[in-house]
Amino acid sequence: MINVGIIGATGYAGEELIDILLCHPEVRITNICAKIPEPQLITDIFPKFRDRIDLVCDEPDLKKIANDCDLIFLALPHTVSMEVAPKLLSAGKTVIDLSADYRLKNTSVYEKFYSTKHKDKENLAKAVYGLPELNRAKIKNAKFIANPGCYPTACILPLAPLVAFGLIDADSIIIDAKSGVTGAGRKITAGFLFSEVNEDFKAYKVNNHQHSPEINQELSKLAGKKIEVVFVPHLLPLNRGILSTIYVNKGNKGAKSQGLTQLYKKFYKNEPFVRIRKEGDFPRIKDVVNTNFCDICLKEEKGRVIIVSAIDNLLKGASGQAVQNMNIMYGFPEKTALL
Amino acid sequence: MINVGIIGATGYAGEELIDILLCHPEVRITNICAKIPEPQLITDIFPKFRDRIDLVCDEPDLKKIANDCDLIFLALPHTVSMEVAPKLLSAGKTVIDLSADYRLKNTSVYEKFYSTKHKDKENLAKAVYGLPELNRAKIKNAKFIANPGCYPTACILPLAPLVAFGLIDADSIIIDAKSGVTGAGRKITAGFLFSEVNEDFKAYKVNNHQHSPEINQELSKLAGKKIEVVFVPHLLPLNRGILSTIYVNKGNKGAKSQGLTQLYKKFYKNEPFVRIRKEGDFPRIKDVVNTNFCDICLKEEKGRVIIVSAIDNLLKGASGQAVQNMNIMYGFPEKTALL
Amino acid sequence: MINVGIIGATGYAGEELIDILLCHPEVRITNICAKIPEPQLITDIFPKFRDRIDLVCDEPDLKKIANDCDLIFLALPHTVSMEVAPKLLSAGKTVIDLSADYRLKNTSVYEKFYSTKHKDKENLAKAVYGLPELNRAKIKNAKFIANPGCYPTACILPLAPLVAFGLIDADSIIIDAKSGVTGAGRKITAGFLFSEVNEDFKAYKVNNHQHSPEINQELSKLAGKKIEVVFVPHLLPLNRGILSTIYVNKGNKGAKSQGLTQLYKKFYKNEPFVRIRKEGDFPRIKDVVNTNFCDICLKEEKGRVIIVSAIDNLLKGASGQAVQNMNIMYGFPEKTALL
Amino acid sequence: MINVGIIGATGYAGEELIDILLCHPEVRITNICAKIPEPQLITDIFPKFRDRIDLVCDEPDLKKIANDCDLIFLALPHTVSMEVAPKLLSAGKTVIDLSADYRLKNTSVYEKFYSTKHKDKENLAKAVYGLPELNRAKIKNAKFIANPGCYPTACILPLAPLVAFGLIDADSIIIDAKSGVTGAGRKITAGFLFSEVNEDFKAYKVNNHQHSPEINQELSKLAGKKIEVVFVPHLLPLNRGILSTIYVNKGNKGAKSQGLTQLYKKFYKNEPFVRIRKEGDFPRIKDVVNTNFCDICLKEEKGRVIIVSAIDNLLKGASGQAVQNMNIMYGFPEKTALL
Repeated sequence: MINVGIIGATGYAGEELIDILLCHPEVRITNICAKIPEPQLITDIFPKFRDRIDLVCDEPDLKKIANDCDLIFLALPHTVSMEVAPKLLSAGKTVIDLSADYRLKNTSVYEKFYSTKHKDKENLAKAVYGLPELNRAKIKNAKFIANPGCYPTACILPLAPLVAFGLIDADSIIIDAKSGVTGAGRKITAGFLFSEVNEDFKAYKVNNHQHSPEINQELSKLAGKKIEVVFVPHLLPLNRGILSTIYVNKGNKGAKSQGLTQLYKKFYKNEPFVRIRKEGDFPRIKDVVNTNFCDICLKEEKGRVIIVSAIDNLLKGASGQAVQNMNIMYGFPEKTALL
Repeated sequence: MINVGIIGATGYAGEELIDILLCHPEVRITNICAKIPEPQLITDIFPKFRDRIDLVCDEPDLKKIANDCDLIFLALPHTVSMEVAPKLLSAGKTVIDLSADYRLKNTSVYEKFYSTKHKDKENLAKAVYGLPELNRAKIKNAKFIANPGCYPTACILPLAPLVAFGLIDADSIIIDAKSGVTGAGRKITAGFLFSEVNEDFKAYKVNNHQHSPEINQELSKLAGKKIEVVFVPHLLPLNRGILSTIYVNKGNKGAKSQGLTQLYKKFYKNEPFVRIRKEGDFPRIKDVVNTNFCDICLKEEKGRVIIVSAIDNLLKGASGQAVQNMNIMYGFPEKTALL
Repeated sequence: MINVGIIGATGYAGEELIDILLCHPEVRITNICAKIPEPQLITDIFPKFRDRIDLVCDEPDLKKIANDCDLIFLALPHTVSMEVAPKLLSAGKTVIDLSADYRLKNTSVYEKFYSTKHKDKENLAKAVYGLPELNRAKIKNAKFIANPGCYPTACILPLAPLVAFGLIDADSIIIDAKSGVTGAGRKITAGFLFSEVNEDFKAYKVNNHQHSPEINQELSKLAGKKIEVVFVPHLLPLNRGILSTIYVNKGNKGAKSQGLTQLYKKFYKNEPFVRIRKEGDFPRIKDVVNTNFCDICLKEEKGRVIIVSAIDNLLKGASGQAVQNMNIMYGFPEKTALL
Repeated sequence: MINVGIIGATGYAGEELIDILLCHPEVRITNICAKIPEPQLITDIFPKFRDRIDLVCDEPDLKKIANDCDLIFLALPHTVSMEVAPKLLSAGKTVIDLSADYRLKNTSVYEKFYSTKHKDKENLAKAVYGLPELNRAKIKNAKFIANPGCYPTACILPLAPLVAFGLIDADSIIIDAKSGVTGAGRKITAGFLFSEVNEDFKAYKVNNHQHSPEINQELSKLAGKKIEVVFVPHLLPLNRGILSTIYVNKGNKGAKSQGLTQLYKKFYKNEPFVRIRKEGDFPRIKDVVNTNFCDICLKEEKGRVIIVSAIDNLLKGASGQAVQNMNIMYGFPEKTALL
């Protein structure tokens, strides 16, 4: 049984973490914090948790948190995490950071996309990118996890086998991604008002989204050479879920390849949360919402492969994956509280 | 042909006014204003109007507006209208105010529900309540219209005949009203974010909504005695439309009444925008969205009547009714640009 | 550990039962059946269950089911359950029926509202109405449960204390109920198409819904006298959830009552799935979706009480309550798999 | 003033045609027909039209229709139109067919995608593809129009200039298209139920949709050589609108091209219903819903162009375009009833 704190508990990822951890038999939530005008019962903020938890949410007192907790989840906005993480890490705590602050190893790229200096290069170097399917061994021994972004999770998993085996033209990757609104967090701006989003659909940050470099970094690592994808995200009028439609050209090596679906099944055969569908049986968002699964389906055409992947952006794309990482780090069965 | 200005053009009611007036053959929109950081093409704010209008939206310059326009629509937040209206009225202009500032004749009630002093009692006394079905004669000769609220329109019309003829127990009126999200205006608060409203439904301001006294005032006038309704509004996860379900007990006089539907048809027989459905053929929001109609249906039971009404809150509940009032005031055919 | 079968697994209630029972440590799902053109993997019907269950869904073979299972859930359409239940009961099996077939004790009322003869009066007499909050003792010893309807659950719980203590005018109960679309089941009719329901809202079966007599039956039993409510259901454009707004007049006995919220808290103090909110803190659908809770809030006014209740129609209104009943019958902790 | 009939009036396109034509000053709707169990007032089918039209909808009597009407719109399902059109054409009537029956000039392609023999090759040869921006001259003199599909309209317009000028690699066109649910018509199947589509999103008919050959045919004609696009449609949980995100590689000729947005503005400069946005100012569905506009925006990158287009599938994608074609054929101002 471990003691766990959540900093940034009032956002969607924080709310979801509470929901998952309340069902986790090896976890006791001891501290819940957020930037908040004054201390408030977490059940007054989220009435759905009434009769299940009895904690007050308050501004984070890092000393108290370090004292109370074994592990702390940071569900903070980008640029805020790097103010908080170093203090917890130097107190010897285990930290899983859901923000983007420790994902991009190249700080100049970080600074370009997040418009701020990186203030904690020391821990950046130590942070393990928490995508279990590619990094499980490192995660197992890590004290500090940079939990992947939602789009990167939804895009790296369906591309990893093709990229790792060098079967495709690395310059040809086009990702047309569509995300539900919680992907943007509980941000109070006109663009996320109900009457603006409802009955609407749009592309945004066209090939200029801050998750592009994260996708490029991880795929390049896998490929052993520089990969730059075209990445166009869109905003869906629904609460949860990401569906990515990916177009790639086969490369010389892959030109005569067949049975890519089999290759994928083999690549992911021990993965508890990746499901490879049979060719042409494309997943929909409904298949994965409220689960930690990533569903993937391929369709091979002459010189091309079309891939569709689906995840729940708040689970496999954020809090679910964070708990999966925790399970791996502490030796709990990997599916605990996730199935 | 008249020249028209719109102050408060960036809200939902303002946007809708532009949409209607662009199709009105007797109107030229000459001025478009709103509280706005800097002047901006209205088509940059609302790209849907591109190629249809070529005006800049700017902070209101009342002198210029008074100089340019015959008629000004105020689509301003409550409490702001009464800063603006007096200046336009004293310049001899015709004004249709879509806010609540000139609807409640009793300023102490206004002050209780809108939490501010009323600053323009002089014009309050002159303002005509712009519900054409009950006030057409006065509207015809008015220079200043207080355009009714959306809920009051949706509630007064379905109750007016019963109340006017004294057929019901005046203490028994229960209104369970449900409104789409544009009813709240383009307010940027957490409660109106997509992920909060979508897949949710709730009651709010339970029997304590600022439209209650407006409904009570108008029904009391009709009844010739004090009427206080129970009014519970709810927030629907959709953009446009109000549906009200109303429960009343028949009074002594109405106990043996029959054929209330016929009575309603007669009461509204010359009204271009009220449609009485046959008994039991209840309207739905879809029947009236994007129209200026109010659809009404009754079901009589032993001692009780159940009434359902439906309107589009932005049309018959706001901008459509405002244009209907304009048509009446200027002698244009009443349906112009509304059908 | 018990063996459980689900007949009618392809509807929303059946799907939800699978979802809950897959997490229940004392249950093994052994049989999954439905009216279906040909046998099909349940994971081909519901891809979200892949990697979690490995059963074929087939037409029900009652002998095999009786042989394999201890308990059978019937998630069948009304009028179909009474063809199936007798055979399972006579084979000594425990049955929880989610249809309406065994809820109404008066068969002439049943026949009026369901337009068919009742064919199993024998078992009708034995069926226990499975509302744990009012009937736990009987449920504990039952072999056959008539699981309550979704609207009745959402309406009886918020009225029970007032009715049981005789505090209200029994003729004054008005229930304005609003349900998400899954409440209608997976019925393929034009009225439930996306483009018909989306951006729409309507009343239906106005004071003529088949759940009215069920509400009346149970409240009358509690009151010890005949109660007839006014019940108007509405269709919400969302997937899950029922919110009921209830209006009652206090009776002589209740006229001077105060602190009804306290009374409610006391009445339900040992109930794991009823949460009484403080006065005026009305629940919304979001507070209960994906939970088995019924949230209730009161607001007392002069001679009147306004009550709002919220449930998830597929959980507390159907499958969650069915599992709650199972837990009670088998002595499992009542919250198992439900929290 | 012309007399107009609508066959297939009860579908979404038919409903929309009524809505538009009721506002058309040069049109009198004289006949409304559909496959229908028994004759019914069109206002009983669509209550929103009450007080606006007073016709009975009945099974089509082609002789009577030919006798009453100058022009007939066929808003029929695919494969049904070709049963009806020949009779009206041989009676000398003008026909605008909204189905796919007369769009594909190659009948073997038609037969492959629509799974039926083509029965009217004679009129197929005469049918003019009714995309005004590319075919206005032919439309002006036509008696028989094959009105384009919704996806083809949304995809051909944003590609036409690039293809016509040969600026792109013809093999590189990838169209990721997303459509609202009315695009599928009022089809009563499980897949279009509210609870299936709401909160879901999916790809379907991946690179195998019947609109692919229509897009290929028209683009090949423009290019003067064979073009085959990759076309992946997706289903959006909203009523109206199509947004297409298109990815192309510049060809040799286009490699050094600059200012494609200017080229587009020039190409479409006299078009009343195409709006070219400035580079990077991508349209959203909200900008075009309830209008007949097609909005287009480009973003040029190194060797690539990303294009986004948006239309209302029921207007520019169906009934609006059909009326635009009628206006051209009869010499009415092209925008009549459409703005």
